[in-house]
Amino acid sequence: MNPNRFSSKLGVALALAIGSVSINAYAQFNKPQDAIKYRQSSFFVMQQNFARLAAMAQGKTPFNAKEAAEYGQVASLMARQPWQAFGPGTEGGKSLPLIWNENAKFQTASKNFIQKMDALQAATQSGNLDRIKAAVSAAGADCKSCHDAFRD
Amino acid sequence: MNPNRFSSKLGVALALAIGSVSINAYAQFNKPQDAIKYRQSSFFVMQQNFARLAAMAQGKTPFNAKEAAEYGQVASLMARQPWQAFGPGTEGGKSLPLIWNENAKFQTASKNFIQKMDALQAATQSGNLDRIKAAVSAAGADCKSCHDAFRD
Repeated sequence: MNPNRFSSKLGVALALAIGSVSINAYAQFNKPQDAIKYRQSSFFVMQQNFARLAAMAQGKTPFNAKEAAEYGQVASLMARQPWQAFGPGTEGGKSLPLIWNENAKFQTASKNFIQKMDALQAATQSGNLDRIKAAVSAAGADCKSCHDAFRD
Repeated sequence: MNPNRFSSKLGVALALAIGSVSINAYAQFNKPQDAIKYRQSSFFVMQQNFARLAAMAQGKTPFNAKEAAEYGQVASLMARQPWQAFGPGTEGGKSLPLIWNENAKFQTASKNFIQKMDALQAATQSGNLDRIKAAVSAAGADCKSCHDAFRD
């Protein structure tokens, strides 16, 4: 049996179970290494755009509302990507076994994170720097708590 | 002088010069390796979503209009990302020197590619599989021609 087909069915069940925030079911990848690369790649693109927003929030770079909205859009869409690539059989990279051993916690954390990044995108669309600062701070704290728990 | 600051200014000029399709100016990265990783990561996320659409277009996986629209959205947004990470001083990876030596050609190719991926996104939003097949074929041919010219 193809383990990715199994993970896809499991993913659908999980996606239905976790409620209002839409997270894709586990995607099928040609090989586990592709899944690892997919989550690492989407995390990296997200982090780079988040870092640009954080630099604006901290006054390290000039605030540009148009650019901020673009970064917010990319960060929000990328925040939806990694979770589909944590299916069974894709252990590796910096991922701790806890992701698979206590998967409900990980699902909850990923759902919370998407909400934080959506709030950040909404803030960037408002063009209000104070809102962006607050949303960057909230999302950044969420990054850290999830990394502390689930990343080596 | 920080080469990234130079590349950022050059990027603005190029972005203004190439017309109607918006391509970000060269972004500032902490180090050249981050720029290389950014373009590789965004290409990979794009390619994976494009491959899912191609599989639907070829009948290898069942057509699902909702999923197709999601993949089209990711592919289109990712198609805008790599180009900001080809600034001066970021040579490396599989990139051929031609990208920097004949940059106007590369800019034109990247602009054409974004248009193809935007057409693909529009096709996925239409929910019309025949339109998606045509757009996948056109975008795939564009991937290949650009890789043949600019990638080792």
